[in-house]
Amino acid sequence: MTDLIFNHRSVRKFLDCPVEPELLSRILEAGCRASNTGNMQVYSIVVSQEQTMREQLWALHLKQPCVLQAPVHLTFCADLNRFSLWCRQRQASPSYENFLWFYTATIDASLMSQNVALAAEDAGLGICYLGTVNYEPMRFVELLELPRGVFPVAAMVLGYPDGSFPLTDRLPLEGMVHYERYRDYDVGDIDRIYCEREQSEQTRTLLEVNQKQTLAQVFTENRYPGETNLRCSKALWEAACKQMGWKPAEPF
Amino acid sequence: MTDLIFNHRSVRKFLDCPVEPELLSRILEAGCRASNTGNMQVYSIVVSQEQTMREQLWALHLKQPCVLQAPVHLTFCADLNRFSLWCRQRQASPSYENFLWFYTATIDASLMSQNVALAAEDAGLGICYLGTVNYEPMRFVELLELPRGVFPVAAMVLGYPDGSFPLTDRLPLEGMVHYERYRDYDVGDIDRIYCEREQSEQTRTLLEVNQKQTLAQVFTENRYPGETNLRCSKALWEAACKQMGWKPAEPF
Repeated sequence: MTDLIFNHRSVRKFLDCPVEPELLSRILEAGCRASNTGNMQVYSIVVSQEQTMREQLWALHLKQPCVLQAPVHLTFCADLNRFSLWCRQRQASPSYENFLWFYTATIDASLMSQNVALAAEDAGLGICYLGTVNYEPMRFVELLELPRGVFPVAAMVLGYPDGSFPLTDRLPLEGMVHYERYRDYDVGDIDRIYCEREQSEQTRTLLEVNQKQTLAQVFTENRYPGETNLRCSKALWEAACKQMGWKPAEPF
Repeated sequence: MTDLIFNHRSVRKFLDCPVEPELLSRILEAGCRASNTGNMQVYSIVVSQEQTMREQLWALHLKQPCVLQAPVHLTFCADLNRFSLWCRQRQASPSYENFLWFYTATIDASLMSQNVALAAEDAGLGICYLGTVNYEPMRFVELLELPRGVFPVAAMVLGYPDGSFPLTDRLPLEGMVHYERYRDYDVGDIDRIYCEREQSEQTRTLLEVNQKQTLAQVFTENRYPGETNLRCSKALWEAACKQMGWKPAEPF
């Protein structure tokens, strides 16, 4: 298992070959074995396999080719709708459309999705998370017809990998781990943590291609620039308010 | 691996036996192999092992005995501080203290934590997630000295299990999965999805002990009542605003 974890890579090219329904069910079931708050399972999974639906999803995911190619697209949702329906049907008054439960359900949906990723890889499938689901959530809400109380947290394509894919680097563990208390980083710490990544061949190429002086600038100016962050952040916030029925100034 | 996933249970009693530092590092490293947005690794892990620190954490976690007993307590944090420091030190202007990146980092920290859970279980350890970290986050922020940009997302204790622990039930998969589009639940769907759980011996006992008529009422009146939800939700929201430097009405 730990080997499987260390072998994880994002797969962005898939064979034209469907995923067997029984296998898919088993993988999704593995997802639901993850720890979750109060065993309330405040999440749902939308499975998209039809060609026309995948084409529409592909458009929403900024037309990343792997989305069109993969036979399965999964949308992991925070879902306070089902639990609330159950409560109302059982003479109980739910009060879960607030920031705490939005946050809780987001975490639980995430844990579930990571189990799905690993169970899929264990079965020889490849996966790729699609962060683009958080950019304009309302478009996914509309396409997938998510009712109030349901919010798209994470998306993933899966299928049989076509070819092999590189393992991406990670920052040294010491850069991420704090003992007992958070020890804030000084200039030397930052230099040390990012040193290897900054000196890699890949970074050299990135700086050339993007005509930047530092790798950080590739992130702040090309990949995730301020303006895009602000626009997407606003869209995400408004979608959360709408789906959870919040007054924006008081989401609790 | 999939067997490991299906065998997951929360462990709430631990042997008085430390976790070897090399093993712990390997487990945390497995955490960092999870997919993450842009490979930015906007998360941190605070490892608490000292007795006095664990006693304080135990108090914050509503004195759940397993927190005091487990040799290791992990706090998985969204961390936009380190990445922003790096940007500023590299002539780049970070713009990540907004709702989008708070949400993104929350998801990434969650995926990482689930890898940690599974790698720990693969090594014979047991884990228990502690949802209480989301109830009064500022107390964790203060105790662990988390600076601005850093937010506690999930907490977990781990150690060698003392005894065996039951597998908890799950709702039938069909209740969680939607094909192509979200199909909202009607009365019959809800009855069917919750039927087995509602008729279990465990539910019968719960209703007796709590003197309730339905299992849903145990959730809405005993476990997660409206007043507590509201209080915790407000505390979570205020903590997020403080740590991310948001104007509450405009967190983007």
